[in-house]
Amino acid sequence: MTDQLELHEKISSWFHSARDQILNSKQTGLNVDYKTSRLDLVTNMDRGIEKFYREKIRENFPDSNIMGEEGQKDEFRSSQGLFWVIDPIDGTMNFVKQGTHFASMIAVYQDQKPLLGYIYDVINDHLYWGGPGLGVYRDDQKLTAPMDLALADGLLGVNGAMLMHNYRNVQTAVKQSAGARIYGSAGIEFIHVLQGQCVGYLSHLRPWDYAAGAILAESLNLIVKTIDGQPLGMVESEDVLVATPQAYRQITGIMTAES
Amino acid sequence: MTDQLELHEKISSWFHSARDQILNSKQTGLNVDYKTSRLDLVTNMDRGIEKFYREKIRENFPDSNIMGEEGQKDEFRSSQGLFWVIDPIDGTMNFVKQGTHFASMIAVYQDQKPLLGYIYDVINDHLYWGGPGLGVYRDDQKLTAPMDLALADGLLGVNGAMLMHNYRNVQTAVKQSAGARIYGSAGIEFIHVLQGQCVGYLSHLRPWDYAAGAILAESLNLIVKTIDGQPLGMVESEDVLVATPQAYRQITGIMTAES
Repeated sequence: MTDQLELHEKISSWFHSARDQILNSKQTGLNVDYKTSRLDLVTNMDRGIEKFYREKIRENFPDSNIMGEEGQKDEFRSSQGLFWVIDPIDGTMNFVKQGTHFASMIAVYQDQKPLLGYIYDVINDHLYWGGPGLGVYRDDQKLTAPMDLALADGLLGVNGAMLMHNYRNVQTAVKQSAGARIYGSAGIEFIHVLQGQCVGYLSHLRPWDYAAGAILAESLNLIVKTIDGQPLGMVESEDVLVATPQAYRQITGIMTAES
Repeated sequence: MTDQLELHEKISSWFHSARDQILNSKQTGLNVDYKTSRLDLVTNMDRGIEKFYREKIRENFPDSNIMGEEGQKDEFRSSQGLFWVIDPIDGTMNFVKQGTHFASMIAVYQDQKPLLGYIYDVINDHLYWGGPGLGVYRDDQKLTAPMDLALADGLLGVNGAMLMHNYRNVQTAVKQSAGARIYGSAGIEFIHVLQGQCVGYLSHLRPWDYAAGAILAESLNLIVKTIDGQPLGMVESEDVLVATPQAYRQITGIMTAES
């Protein structure tokens, strides 16, 4: 069994080094490229930070398998030992346009079981981390599970395109909530749900967008599944809903009803 | 002519005292009431902070007229001398549900002309302030006017209900932008536009929601008008758009086109 605190000490030091590199990019300059569309950005920083994490993982845990947003994607399904999921910069649009409201994320599994998740709010310098064994922390402060609020009692984070197109009737869920919020970064949205600041968050996500958040959320008794009630597959894009148990039931009830 | 820096010294001290009272409410407890609906909240803190500002204004500038969200609303139209517009807590839903992402705002006019505007990001302890005479500051640091970006080059803050209902075709504007954001506080949204983090912000607002932001935005060469191109009346609710000159023209072009 890997010593989790020893692992944590290493990983958290990588985040602080990543922060220095990211802040430094204000001086060194940012190169922005398009991936699939003008709204799907990647920068030299996304690539550089992923490369940095990969090197650190290889150096410290040479037998690891790795899935990263910007690079090689090992298979989760058959992996034994340590498996890492990396999102170097989550919310690249916010990073480029706002210089804030983005996250850097790492998830670690052992023999396909969740071990540790990390969401780093880079600009505000807060690290949300932990797992089923250690509990969940904001920096050094242990978080308690958020109250199991009903949909009507909380704000709902939603993907903007889903909200605009009333995807699977999501607007009905929003109208039953205390209001919609769009922050533009899955990591930042997960942080809100972990802290009870939103009652849920719904988006179409890939494994590196949700892996770390799912480990943290499940460790705080939140529900993280597809809106059809399936466990997350760690393979493809999925409609992911993280929410309090009450809000999860209510939202999926609305979004899976026959229309 | 009132000495603006002397005025500023007084007003900024009120905000710091308001912050102490607001942070203290975590201990003393919060009473939440509904105003017009379950989504229109008011707390003892909204009322207490407005009362505090009113007392400070009366004490220091006894001949003032005052319009406040939670209390008496003097007429702007006929007012001479100092006129104050107060929003003690803007984004009360965020204040109640999230404990952050809300603002406290004051606008000051002299003989109906903009003098000073204040948006205080309470939790992050940043004061955005200034006016046509002094320029605009974030705490002690002078802000430069944001670049005149086109709609395609920036994020667009939007009111959630307007976005869901595709009010006056706003979804077309969003699709031409780099994406929609919903933060749930006019003050916080204005801050993003002032700093160039969003290219515009559109919502249905009352005078206390937009007065301070409008003074600051116009002092940074941004456009703040109704989406029909009318100046803000300081009387009723209006569809307010604050944006860079380019984005203002593009958004109003879309939203005022015959459909």
